[in-house]
Amino acid sequence: MHKLPTRELAVGILGASGYAGRELCALVARHPALTLAFASAREQCGERVRVAGCDATFVAPDDVALDEAALVFSALPHGASAPWVERARAAGAKVVDLSADLRPGNGVGGVPYGLTELTRREVQGASVVANPGCYPTVTLLALLPLLVRGLVAPGSTITINAASGVTGAGFSPRRDLLFAEVAEDFRPYAAGNTHRHLAEMHAVVRALGGDNDLLFTPHLLPVARGILATITVPLAAPLADPLAPWREQYAGEPFIEVTSEIPTLRDVVHRNVVRITAVPAAQVRQPTLVVIAAIDNLMKGAAGQAVQNANLLLGLEETLGLPA
Amino acid sequence: MHKLPTRELAVGILGASGYAGRELCALVARHPALTLAFASAREQCGERVRVAGCDATFVAPDDVALDEAALVFSALPHGASAPWVERARAAGAKVVDLSADLRPGNGVGGVPYGLTELTRREVQGASVVANPGCYPTVTLLALLPLLVRGLVAPGSTITINAASGVTGAGFSPRRDLLFAEVAEDFRPYAAGNTHRHLAEMHAVVRALGGDNDLLFTPHLLPVARGILATITVPLAAPLADPLAPWREQYAGEPFIEVTSEIPTLRDVVHRNVVRITAVPAAQVRQPTLVVIAAIDNLMKGAAGQAVQNANLLLGLEETLGLPA
Amino acid sequence: MHKLPTRELAVGILGASGYAGRELCALVARHPALTLAFASAREQCGERVRVAGCDATFVAPDDVALDEAALVFSALPHGASAPWVERARAAGAKVVDLSADLRPGNGVGGVPYGLTELTRREVQGASVVANPGCYPTVTLLALLPLLVRGLVAPGSTITINAASGVTGAGFSPRRDLLFAEVAEDFRPYAAGNTHRHLAEMHAVVRALGGDNDLLFTPHLLPVARGILATITVPLAAPLADPLAPWREQYAGEPFIEVTSEIPTLRDVVHRNVVRITAVPAAQVRQPTLVVIAAIDNLMKGAAGQAVQNANLLLGLEETLGLPA
Amino acid sequence: MHKLPTRELAVGILGASGYAGRELCALVARHPALTLAFASAREQCGERVRVAGCDATFVAPDDVALDEAALVFSALPHGASAPWVERARAAGAKVVDLSADLRPGNGVGGVPYGLTELTRREVQGASVVANPGCYPTVTLLALLPLLVRGLVAPGSTITINAASGVTGAGFSPRRDLLFAEVAEDFRPYAAGNTHRHLAEMHAVVRALGGDNDLLFTPHLLPVARGILATITVPLAAPLADPLAPWREQYAGEPFIEVTSEIPTLRDVVHRNVVRITAVPAAQVRQPTLVVIAAIDNLMKGAAGQAVQNANLLLGLEETLGLPA
Repeated sequence: MHKLPTRELAVGILGASGYAGRELCALVARHPALTLAFASAREQCGERVRVAGCDATFVAPDDVALDEAALVFSALPHGASAPWVERARAAGAKVVDLSADLRPGNGVGGVPYGLTELTRREVQGASVVANPGCYPTVTLLALLPLLVRGLVAPGSTITINAASGVTGAGFSPRRDLLFAEVAEDFRPYAAGNTHRHLAEMHAVVRALGGDNDLLFTPHLLPVARGILATITVPLAAPLADPLAPWREQYAGEPFIEVTSEIPTLRDVVHRNVVRITAVPAAQVRQPTLVVIAAIDNLMKGAAGQAVQNANLLLGLEETLGLPA
Repeated sequence: MHKLPTRELAVGILGASGYAGRELCALVARHPALTLAFASAREQCGERVRVAGCDATFVAPDDVALDEAALVFSALPHGASAPWVERARAAGAKVVDLSADLRPGNGVGGVPYGLTELTRREVQGASVVANPGCYPTVTLLALLPLLVRGLVAPGSTITINAASGVTGAGFSPRRDLLFAEVAEDFRPYAAGNTHRHLAEMHAVVRALGGDNDLLFTPHLLPVARGILATITVPLAAPLADPLAPWREQYAGEPFIEVTSEIPTLRDVVHRNVVRITAVPAAQVRQPTLVVIAAIDNLMKGAAGQAVQNANLLLGLEETLGLPA
Repeated sequence: MHKLPTRELAVGILGASGYAGRELCALVARHPALTLAFASAREQCGERVRVAGCDATFVAPDDVALDEAALVFSALPHGASAPWVERARAAGAKVVDLSADLRPGNGVGGVPYGLTELTRREVQGASVVANPGCYPTVTLLALLPLLVRGLVAPGSTITINAASGVTGAGFSPRRDLLFAEVAEDFRPYAAGNTHRHLAEMHAVVRALGGDNDLLFTPHLLPVARGILATITVPLAAPLADPLAPWREQYAGEPFIEVTSEIPTLRDVVHRNVVRITAVPAAQVRQPTLVVIAAIDNLMKGAAGQAVQNANLLLGLEETLGLPA
Repeated sequence: MHKLPTRELAVGILGASGYAGRELCALVARHPALTLAFASAREQCGERVRVAGCDATFVAPDDVALDEAALVFSALPHGASAPWVERARAAGAKVVDLSADLRPGNGVGGVPYGLTELTRREVQGASVVANPGCYPTVTLLALLPLLVRGLVAPGSTITINAASGVTGAGFSPRRDLLFAEVAEDFRPYAAGNTHRHLAEMHAVVRALGGDNDLLFTPHLLPVARGILATITVPLAAPLADPLAPWREQYAGEPFIEVTSEIPTLRDVVHRNVVRITAVPAAQVRQPTLVVIAAIDNLMKGAAGQAVQNANLLLGLEETLGLPA
């Protein structure tokens, strides 16, 4: 791996006032090799970044000095991000794009997908990385070991039920996200396989050799952070050791925890990890695994993985500045 | 239907200090035709029942006057309930047993199953009713219209992901149910199809003509009340009108809401209803419905349905005293 | 008291889409003597009122038929309400104004203050009532028995610390009220005696003969509903029986619970009651009572008390349609 | 200050399975100069310590090797701790006692009180330190600058209203601490000045020259962590600059944040800080300050302050291993 640099590297954050943006501010503030060049925010420009350890003020997007950053994180909304990625690139900065704009399944090609454990080598040599969505991160890291080994029943449907904390819905002032609306509730949404993240997951499943359909139902949880996915996978044949594919695939991975215990959100919040188990289903004729995986949607599902990719883009140790 | 009685009927509650027991106390207190004969509790005997409108004191089980009750609700723990059902019966009382002891799939036969909308006629003439479990209530009422119409793909696996508020886990002083453990968490449990309620669901699915396997994964939610089930059902053929089976089956049912909106917990808490929708899955080859259903686990999932059954056993209007 | 009317009375609700407005919709829907003439909402006009039992659609303010209502509830924002009160009055309707516009301490006189237990007689003969604020309701009902008996140390400062659920802050889409901001937090606000409700409390304390200063600090709680006030009252002299003033004052009151137990929010939510205790402070030289009182801010603190006043204005039984 | 040691120091934790004990395990795991010699727990002995980064197993108290630790933290229950402090001392270890056993006001003398910012010098030379209670920590650090400057009105009563997250009540399996009981509730307790912590606060106020009475009412919040105190202080005279006493007193303190913003729990959780503001009360004749202070009850209120003291006892940099 790489040596620690002797001087700190300046990074900028576009769209820094949302939940992922502020998490990036916090991670950069604690990162031993990075400094914050700028943090942009349209509405809140001029206000202090209220993040522990982050001594900065939001600047307006137009006042950002892209050429002062070795790397730019874009946490801008989907649709608004792509033009800024171009501008940052033109200014000579590397870019980690947290929006969906450049991800697989969106019709745009040529940019490495930053599911780091899968695409580490491509990321290392890249100048722009499309950081995965939160649901795809937890789902794809959970499925990857089965798919690359051809263990999933061909042509079968993989059923993904996932539940996310409300920071996954962003920092917009929406009535349906008010405390008194979310507390004591639990809400499915995008039912019937209509979530935007489905295309991203499907494209990667195909790229990994899976011919399976995905049936994905997300839910909104009354918690601030975390995503837990409960995934039902029909198998080509029963597995003697249900955890073996994950243990083999992810041996030595610093941010993946394969466990015989059932993961819960508390195990992963504020950490840049995915925690995975798999349990064979009893009492069904079709051999089936129940795969359960959990991440912090703002860490491994957004800002943490973005820093993991940024470390690689900048030639730093991949784990630098990340709580595992 | 039946006429309102001219005098109130006395009912007793065994195991009245838990969450379902206290919900029964509250429902009986507000019921226009019932009075409370006794509420038993072992540990808390001698203490006041702290339920609004319920002016009673817990009595020790041995001090209960079973013969003073026209009907006895048993909210005793699984295993402990069956002997008390016998005693109450011997004392001449009708019984609604909220425990799992007499439910289908438990090897005990001959007692009508109190899934009221399915078994109304059997309940009316019975002296003892096995009140369904909370997960089976929401799951079976969601699946029933598809099963009785033969619409489920034969031999397929129905995937049931359900999430329950913590009152579903009872009022025991367990460390894993402390506020600081449950808040901001979300936990699958009994993964791999090992939950006790599976046998009950399976037995009823079989009785309704389904040859399907069930794959059931329950989760613990950081809310006090409510269960939401997200159920994936492979269909024999696509449905022209996805909600038609439910609208036909449940026309005129006072406690079933078929809706084109996605149900959430807030829609059902503190009400004796099940709220159901069904959405066809896009982007999958196998025609599939995503059926979503929600109940209050303490109402339609326990005490509310118990009162619904008690009303029938006592010859009262089925809806009496129940918030719909 | 009064007889139940033979026909139902039509009432209208202005500003019905907020939390208090929707609570009014629910109370009217369950009220045995009232029907809903209209429910107005500017932004949400045309949408269904999503309240159990309420079969209505929000109308635009300008489309409201004020003359079809025997009584109008105004849950409009402070400042916007007063002109509508005039219009409703001119159209021949009685009015319960839930805004602060006509309350004591606001410089407007001549309208009875609807702290029902204090001002019942004035309310009965009135055509318009200023419904009290939520903090003043709980505070003044807690202090009233001491003040009217002259038991408070003259010239002393009464310290009021109160905490409210977030519905008290309204249904506006504010970022600081999002679930992920409020959960796991607890926030004082308006510190230094700057809350708008102070004038209302002060005016009534003066009217009751108290010459005391009030020091009021409100806090935002991570709960949906409920206000709890912890009030420190220096006494002129120790009290032999600390609860006696409340028991005497409120004997026979249907919506006031004087208790030797310490009230908590769970005791009062969804009920139109105030629950009060008083405990003498040990280990202090100045005789002092700690008075603790709790209400549901949307019930006794807003919509419930509004219906209590409406019942009186319309010549109905004061308790009609109200959960105690 | 001190140099970083060249070798790590071994510390033991008695009573490590509770909330404070596990927080200590986590802090020691991340501490650059400390290693964990043992973590004892009676009921859970033999189980893994489920704390991120802590690779250890609980041992039975009797199996603890006290002589292998340079320092022992005792997080044992009040009453049970004192004898173990003696044993650890006899075995040659330094001790930080988190129980109330040796704190001021408990009749035991001679042990320095570890309110570090007040007693830093005494702690540095000591072998045993009584770590302060959570409520006294936040209250005393808030009051200290006023008391030592003689700014509080002589003989007046200081009113302290504080609210704590449920981890403050410990990890015992109590029904009243279950999620479904605590959520959506807010509960005063020990009303009337009867809390055990009052003696500790009173003793230190006296030692700082205050002749004031304290009137302390604690409340239980539906949050996991954090304490916020709202303190009303009658002043001898108005203050020109209300924050000056704190800014002067705490200049350069690494763990104290004096702020013109109102502190909330979110500002302090997971950090070893106290955050304080003071606001002069308007509309009262008696000059009065409203002082608001917040801490994380498990960090600055327990384990964090314990590590702060341990660092001093061991001759390490006071801030080592502590998140500020």
